[in-house]
This record gives sequence, structure tokens and C-alpha cells, in this order.
Amino acid sequence: MKKVGVAILGLGVVGGGTYKILTEHREFYKKIHGVDIGVVGILERKKERAEELGVNADMLTCDIDEICKNPAVDIVVEVMGGVEPAKTFVLAALNAGKSVVTSNKELFCKFSHELEAAAKKNNCGLFYEASCVGGVPVIRTLLDNLQGNRITSMMGIINGTTNYILTKMSNGGASYNDVLSEAQKLGYAEADPTADVEGFDAAYKLSILSSLSFHTKIPYTKIYREGITGVETCDLQYGKRLGYVLKLLAIGKNSEKGIEVRVHPTFVKNTHPLASVSDSYNAVYVTGDSVEDVMLYGRGAGALPTGSAIVGDIIYCATHDNFNYSTFENNENADPETKFVTNYESAYYIRLDAEDKAGVLSNVYSVLGKYDISVAQSVQDNEKKNGSVPVILITHETFEENVKKAVNEINNGKVFAKVASVIRVVS
Amino acid sequence: MKKVGVAILGLGVVGGGTYKILTEHREFYKKIHGVDIGVVGILERKKERAEELGVNADMLTCDIDEICKNPAVDIVVEVMGGVEPAKTFVLAALNAGKSVVTSNKELFCKFSHELEAAAKKNNCGLFYEASCVGGVPVIRTLLDNLQGNRITSMMGIINGTTNYILTKMSNGGASYNDVLSEAQKLGYAEADPTADVEGFDAAYKLSILSSLSFHTKIPYTKIYREGITGVETCDLQYGKRLGYVLKLLAIGKNSEKGIEVRVHPTFVKNTHPLASVSDSYNAVYVTGDSVEDVMLYGRGAGALPTGSAIVGDIIYCATHDNFNYSTFENNENADPETKFVTNYESAYYIRLDAEDKAGVLSNVYSVLGKYDISVAQSVQDNEKKNGSVPVILITHETFEENVKKAVNEINNGKVFAKVASVIRVVS
Repeated sequence: MKKVGVAILGLGVVGGGTYKILTEHREFYKKIHGVDIGVVGILERKKERAEELGVNADMLTCDIDEICKNPAVDIVVEVMGGVEPAKTFVLAALNAGKSVVTSNKELFCKFSHELEAAAKKNNCGLFYEASCVGGVPVIRTLLDNLQGNRITSMMGIINGTTNYILTKMSNGGASYNDVLSEAQKLGYAEADPTADVEGFDAAYKLSILSSLSFHTKIPYTKIYREGITGVETCDLQYGKRLGYVLKLLAIGKNSEKGIEVRVHPTFVKNTHPLASVSDSYNAVYVTGDSVEDVMLYGRGAGALPTGSAIVGDIIYCATHDNFNYSTFENNENADPETKFVTNYESAYYIRLDAEDKAGVLSNVYSVLGKYDISVAQSVQDNEKKNGSVPVILITHETFEENVKKAVNEINNGKVFAKVASVIRVVS
Repeated sequence: MKKVGVAILGLGVVGGGTYKILTEHREFYKKIHGVDIGVVGILERKKERAEELGVNADMLTCDIDEICKNPAVDIVVEVMGGVEPAKTFVLAALNAGKSVVTSNKELFCKFSHELEAAAKKNNCGLFYEASCVGGVPVIRTLLDNLQGNRITSMMGIINGTTNYILTKMSNGGASYNDVLSEAQKLGYAEADPTADVEGFDAAYKLSILSSLSFHTKIPYTKIYREGITGVETCDLQYGKRLGYVLKLLAIGKNSEKGIEVRVHPTFVKNTHPLASVSDSYNAVYVTGDSVEDVMLYGRGAGALPTGSAIVGDIIYCATHDNFNYSTFENNENADPETKFVTNYESAYYIRLDAEDKAGVLSNVYSVLGKYDISVAQSVQDNEKKNGSVPVILITHETFEENVKKAVNEINNGKVFAKVASVIRVVS
């Protein structure tokens, strides 16, 4: 039987999950896949962590060279996260002729051009299903299932931490800060939550997914990014009354006008399949010109779900002889011919604090009309907050720049109302 | 640039969609996938259909030998449906060294052992993503993403016609026969709807999907099958009041007790992700020991969605050199060691027509208690129908055989109530 040796770089959450799956299923894989996949090396400084997982001490090393020089290692699994030293280690492994499986979205997003070039040069496999949306099979679906489509749109809830926080804020009515603290206590949010709550994590993933969807390099620096730190609980409640659920959505679109890529809080109509994706669940909703709509839903993070994606790649690598590479990923930057759309078309949720006097809404509607913005739904409560009346408007589809101009004019003119929040809307 | 020639057997709905996608995207695939995929042959008797699609008459033939002997044909796409002559044609193509892509669930379900053996012998690819759930990427997900998991359960809404009919019955309150007639007029149901409404189509797909999930041959003859022809609209309405939606569910489970596979109308709790899969949409909900829950959702049928799956397989086949085969599919029958569970554990919806007199429900509960069946929810309306009162019970999880015995005892004993319907329930 073919023997395949695996080395794992980093025994964190995902590394531990991967080790556990591989060791517990070894006999099963021999029987089912006809290949004996053994863990033969682990790069990890923390001996206690290795002991906790029952790792044989002989397997442990702190030296990447030991792993690269070990002829028993066929596949290197990089689950350290961050750019360095992960990048140096992955390149060393590829240049030593080892195939690489990684869950590192930041590394792959920023340096796929270098990693793919090294993999190709050395005739090695480079797999990264686990870099996006944990156990949800989105990468391979884009590469090997929907690859005959022109993908026109993808929308994803691709960060578990923010979806957990927004779900709790929506259900319980607590503030962002209170829910964040609770999420940190429960381990759903990191001590420094910036990467998640400011949308960096989602932007890295969207960079990878939109590059694959649109067959051209979409650097994460081209992605408009707005996190959830400014989300107010009252907006979730108003949105709910109007039939919307707030999600941190990663959106990629490709049309004749060009490509648009953005990550921001978004109200999703409660009849949309994405609306029911709650807590730490994730989902990606892809629209192609042949397949129409496809949604992939599941656990976007966690030791075993992400480990499932890693192990899926390991088994694929161990049972296939030839590896394919993307045709565009040699680019670090966007193709100069790629047009990026920044004046998005969207519907908008606008919350106004209006003074309680005659003519105010007439003023507001007049400014909106000037910028060709028409209102589809509105709610006004018969209660004052801090002396003003909250008025909620949901617009028909309009242009981002028009909304910005209208908001500016309302806030700076003599309209007797201020815009308290603006949130994009998907129906 | 590598040239790949495709021949399509049958220009029906899916064949036409495949032809359209391949011809309209030819330049796109050259640019993106680096391969020139051209349609070089079509087996179709109806010249009008070919003309309608703009097919060059030179390409048409009625003779499979012409296609098998044509050296320009690399991949044969079988989209004829049914066992013969599809089986003879596919075997001829494989034996002539052509790879095959098929959407034919009945053929693959019944003869995968012969087809895979021929493919392996001739070193050809055999792809069948389109055989199950149209554009939804469920086959490759099982083969290449979740293959490191022990799959414990899969539940699918995998027949579009029945889901359309049940959705309309639930929304509009019309009867099964009325909705079926409407569906036939709209082209959502065939003139002879037996394969769909009696659950054969779903059983063929479940046979394929559960074989892949559980790594052993599950012949469709082992699948318990119950269609939707006996579904009464009033049950959908009562179910809705209790928070359930009726679906024709294909269920496969694998536990220490053995494998259970069944297709039947099922009430799904309205908070379950499968509950919101409406109209002709399909979804498969898979649970694995590492990945936890994954749901794949999309169009389960139609010219372009199914064409998308076919073309995905064509491009995969055209850009990969080695093909993998399943290890178990040489079996026509189930492995003698496979245990099949038939005494399912499930919750049950039971509608009783009770005589309006004292003690009736006490009698019913007494019989249920005798068979260890406890009730989780109940509804009784203060209105008589044909002299009796409808009483709805939803039980906790219990055994199928206990329910059968209890129903038998209620219907044949002096309980003063008759069981009008029994429907399995998933929470």
C-alpha cells in the first residue's frame, strides 16, 4: 500500500484537529482510499500541547529544515497562521519537493503568486480549501464544479465571529461591546478581535474566492472594507421590523461595468437563503450564468470542520498524481485591464434623527429626490429619543455616490434631520 | 493549445443545455482553462431539435459507431436517460477509449459496477456529477472534500418535481391532483409522473449518494420508498400549525446498528435549514464526524444548471490526466457484511379521526404507551369532519415497528378512533 507521510506545522486549534482526524482515521483511510497516511513530523515549540494531544515526542521539532530534509515527509500542512514565519516555511517545503496543504488565508491571499510559482516549479501540489470557510467546500466547488460558469455574483457570510456577534445582538438586544466581551469569554472571539470585527479576515477570504470566481487576481487592497464595530443594536431591531437580518457580507460581482468587491454590514431580506445562516455558521451564495444559484453552508471554523477541509486536501493530494495551478495567480497585483467598480448599485437602509416639526420629512425626501433616490419602505415611531424622532427609510436600488451626496447634504443643510446610520441592503 | 472533442448523445433538455453552454463559452474556456473544447458529434434522430439549437447538420448522426470510431471524439456525454440504449452506448464509448460524462441516475445507480469496470479497464474517465441534484456539487463534495469524514447522516430534497408540488400544496391549499395537473402544464412534471412522485428518481439518487457517503454499495432495491401520491393537503396545514414543512426526503444514515436508507414524505421542523428549500430548489444536508453539518443548495434540474454540472465534469476531464474510481462500485449487490436497519428510529406525526365521545383519547394514549410511544405535541380542533374530530399527535423519537403495531391496534381495536395518516418527522 502507498505510504504518505504528513508533517504538521503548528499544533494550534486547526493543527490539533488535523492531527486528531488523521490519527483516528488512519485504518479507515487505508481501507477506503487505499493509502496509508501517517503523521511523521510536527513543528511545535509547546511540548505541553503536544503531550495533551498524545503526540510522540520523537516527532516534535522546532526546525523546519528537519522536516524539509526528512524523506518520509510527502505533504506539509501549514496551520500556523500569519505571514511569517509561515511563508518562509511553506516556500522551503515546496522547494524541498513537498506538497503543501494550508489553512492560511492571509498568507495565500497576499502571496499566492509566490507560493503557486514555487509549487509549479517543483511539481508539487498546493492546496488551500481550508483557507476559506472551514469545512464548507467552496474552493473546490469553484475550481472543479462551477468552472464552466461565468460567475456573476458571490455573497458570503464568511466570518464566524462577526456572525455570532450579530446574531446575539439581534436576538438578545445587547450592545456590540457586551456581546463581544461574552464572545471573547466563550472563545468565539480573539483577545484582539480586530482581524475579525474590522473585516480583514473576510477580505482575505473574499480576495481568494473572488480571484477564483472571476479568473483574475483580486488583491485584498482593492476590497472595500467596513467592519461591525459601529453597528448599533437599535438598527438591528428596526431592520428586523422591516423584514431584514444584519450580516457582515462579503460581496463580489462581475458585470460589464467591471468587478466590485466589498465587505460590510448588510441587511439581508429574511426570505433570502443567507438570512437563516446564524451563529457561527457560514455560507457562500454563488450565482453563475449556467448553474443559477448555489449555496454552500456549514461550519466556517473550528478544529474538526477546518481539519476536515485540510484532511480532504491531504487525501486528494495523496491519491492524485498531477496537480493543477491557477492561470492568473502569478500576479501579485490586479491585471491593469481589470476595471474595478466603486460606485456600487445597492438598496440602502437610512436611519434619520429628525426634529419633531412640520416639513422635516418633506425636506429629506426632497434631497433624496434630487439625487434620484426613491424610498421603498419607511417606519416612523411615535417616540422621541434625545429630543428627536427616529425615521427609517429603505431605498430602492441606487448608486453609492448618490447616497453619499444626499447624506452629506442632509447632514450639512437646513433639513432639520441628521443621518444616524446608513447600511446597504440585499433583497 | 490542447484540443478536446465532445460528442453528445441526446439533444433533450440537458443535452441542449450542454451544447449551448459549450458553444457559447468556447473562447472563454480557451482563455481560462487553456483548452479548446469543441462539440464534434451529436447523436440525435430529431433533425428539428438540432436545427432549433443551430447544430451543424454534418455533426449529426444516429449511429453510435460513428461516434466511437471518430478519433476527434475524446469525451462522450450521455444525456439520454433510461437504461437502454444508454448503457450499450456508454459501454461502447468506454471500450473505444472515450471518457464518459453522464447525467443518467438510473443507469449509474443500476450499472455503476459495469460502467466503472469498463472505464478502469480502458483507462478512461467516468464522471456523473450531473446524475444527482443538477447543478449542486454534491458528488465531488463527497469524493474530494468530505472523503476524510465518516459520514453519519445525509438528508436530501433531491427531486424538484415533488418539492414543487408539496410547496404549492402547502402555500395554496390545493389538492395533490390539482397541483400535479398544473405542474404538468408548466413542464415541472412529466406526462407520466411516476418516477418522480413515487420516489424512484429520489431512490436512484440516494443509492448513488449513500454508496459514496458510506463507501459501500447501496443498491436502490434496499431503499424503503414511499411517494407523495397519498399526501393530503390537510396534513400539510396541520403540520404548518405545529411548525413543520412537508418534504419528500431522501435519508441515509450509518451507525453502529447498520445503514438505513429511505425516501418518504417527511415533516421537517421549520427551523431546520432544509425547511426553507422551496419550489424546485434542491438541497443535500450531510453530517460527518469532522465537518459536522454541511448543506449544499441549488437548482436540482433544468437545462443550464444540469448542463453546468456536465460541463464542469467535461472541463475536469479535459484538464486532468489521471482518473480515480471508487473502490466498492464493482459490486452490483450490497456487500453481504452490510447490515441494513429497517426498524427506523424517528419521531412521527399521527392524525386520528376520533369519535366525539369521552375516553377516546385516553384509549389512544393507552395504546401508544403500551408500545413505549410518548407524545411531544398535540392539536385538537373543536370541529367535526364527517362526524369525527381530527386529533394530531407528534411523538418523541420511537421505533417504526412500534408505531406500526400501535396503529394496527388503534385501527382494529375498540378505541373509537382511526389513524388517518402517519408521517415521519425530522427536527
